Amino acid sequence: MVNAAPYMNANAQLEQIFEAFKQRTITRVFYVACGGSSALMYPSKYFLDRESSTITAEIYSSNEFIHRNPQSLSEQSLVILCSHKGKTPETTAAAKFAKSKGALVVSLMYVETAPLADESDFIVNYSWISAGNMEPHPEIMNYAVLYKLAMGLLYVKEGNNKYEKLLSSLDNLGSVFEKVMQQNTGLVDAYAQKYKDEKIIYTMASGANYGMAYSFAICILMEMQRIHSHAIHAGEFFHGPFEILDKDVPFILLMGLDETRPLEERALTFLKQYGEKLIIVDAKNFDLTGIDEEVQGYLAPLVNNFFLRMFALALSKARNHPLETRRYMFKVPY
Amino acid sequence: MVNAAPYMNANAQLEQIFEAFKQRTITRVFYVACGGSSALMYPSKYFLDRESSTITAEIYSSNEFIHRNPQSLSEQSLVILCSHKGKTPETTAAAKFAKSKGALVVSLMYVETAPLADESDFIVNYSWISAGNMEPHPEIMNYAVLYKLAMGLLYVKEGNNKYEKLLSSLDNLGSVFEKVMQQNTGLVDAYAQKYKDEKIIYTMASGANYGMAYSFAICILMEMQRIHSHAIHAGEFFHGPFEILDKDVPFILLMGLDETRPLEERALTFLKQYGEKLIIVDAKNFDLTGIDEEVQGYLAPLVNNFFLRMFALALSKARNHPLETRRYMFKVPY
Repeated sequence: MVNAAPYMNANAQLEQIFEAFKQRTITRVFYVACGGSSALMYPSKYFLDRESSTITAEIYSSNEFIHRNPQSLSEQSLVILCSHKGKTPETTAAAKFAKSKGALVVSLMYVETAPLADESDFIVNYSWISAGNMEPHPEIMNYAVLYKLAMGLLYVKEGNNKYEKLLSSLDNLGSVFEKVMQQNTGLVDAYAQKYKDEKIIYTMASGANYGMAYSFAICILMEMQRIHSHAIHAGEFFHGPFEILDKDVPFILLMGLDETRPLEERALTFLKQYGEKLIIVDAKNFDLTGIDEEVQGYLAPLVNNFFLRMFALALSKARNHPLETRRYMFKVPY
Repeated sequence: MVNAAPYMNANAQLEQIFEAFKQRTITRVFYVACGGSSALMYPSKYFLDRESSTITAEIYSSNEFIHRNPQSLSEQSLVILCSHKGKTPETTAAAKFAKSKGALVVSLMYVETAPLADESDFIVNYSWISAGNMEPHPEIMNYAVLYKLAMGLLYVKEGNNKYEKLLSSLDNLGSVFEKVMQQNTGLVDAYAQKYKDEKIIYTMASGANYGMAYSFAICILMEMQRIHSHAIHAGEFFHGPFEILDKDVPFILLMGLDETRPLEERALTFLKQYGEKLIIVDAKNFDLTGIDEEVQGYLAPLVNNFFLRMFALALSKARNHPLETRRYMFKVPY
């Protein structure tokens, strides 16, 4: 399933948003969404944390955001929301709440009209395809749009030049994905066969990659495969969770290229010493030709995630448990 | 094991710190620690989020903090760290890093001298006893000291009067704990017998209580009992994790008295409908006489946590797996 329309719109929509950035003071970004849509936002927060001394970023699950009611939410806030079909009720309510506080409200969605759009100042339509397929427009996939917003914000406000490097790098992301697919089909199938009967699989990462670990744990493993899981932060691992590690406990470790890589490397050493069921997804193993060195740390999670989506599809096939299977979501009231 | 010395010191140490608050501009609080010491800080961030429009708060695992290197860390930052024995290397390094950026560095620890103290501008010695025992000085236990710092900060900077209500309430916390103990010993023993053979137990909460769920999952269940676990945010539950719920999957749900309680109530309804192995820890069931209504939402997690610590001890006895047992922590290099 490919949505062609956004290709025409996303960049034009972003241009309008950048104009709006110019018109107001922005000191605080709130990333607000639920589940997988929230996990998408972790890399963008990592970017803002690292690059700006004047604009800070927070991530909240939509309902937590509304009920917590952060006092720092104001006219100087940018609230970025995301809901795949724009129908997540909590996220729509969060957009409305943010507008009532005078914030600039920008929402991402895959569809062109939706309740969430009605409560937003601006929307961006991203491109999306199902797991295990090639991304025809990686430059406007959800993660890319989120980076364009964050890097575009600092480009407009602080002259940060990562935005330009992002744009040229995104043009080459498709060919990076293509090589990952060509070179790893056998590997993900082998992993799927090896781990298809596991009852629990932990994921782990740090820095820009943590959101990918979270997303894979809660959306793919728990939601789509009904496998017990938990995304462990690679730094926190040594302060409790590592006691659970044993030769029969599977771990997926994501290794990125950002500044927190030493945390993931430390976890790797320990995993190798005391564990045996390991899937190591290391961005260093992928050919990143065309990705500007200065943004490789930021874009590595997208490449690791592409690998994870291949693995998700392979796992679902090996288990005869399609990724679309649900027992509660959209099926019962909640 | 009771540490008597802090009783003499903690409040005097806090007075000195409040003087330091008066001397400088503080716009940003960073809570930095690892594992259980980090989990302690979640309620304080919840307080700052809700109550201040000018001072924002972040929580980072110590090594993530150093490597992420947030650009907003500056002379206008207050960095609050915690390490039980003041020897956690990552946290000591984080204190040093924060000082190098000109931040005001305040560290909590149970001991009076430690490497972490040497890298801090100020320290506070908190009172601590092992799980399942009465707290002789709840007014200077770790959570209480953290709240004193956060509420004291807003008292000094913004005239927020929750600080005074906190002080009077903390004087009565001991008697609240005592009643919880008297009334729930049989209940935690029954839960321990019922769930002692479980291989996985999820925890869940939102708002001010989420840190307690995180702490119980990673420190008690994973670290001290080697039971698989994961702290699920009650709002995120419905966006993936709930697909794992079944009649044979145990959940501990914490229910607080803060503004996010509706999220926990929604989770409760669903848990009751599709699950059967449930431990509901609801602050509404405890007698909170003496806790000022305006700070009950903030202090409820401490009471829920007291119940959890009783349960932890009962569980460890039922499983013949003492809470002190480790296979890696402090035993092998990592």
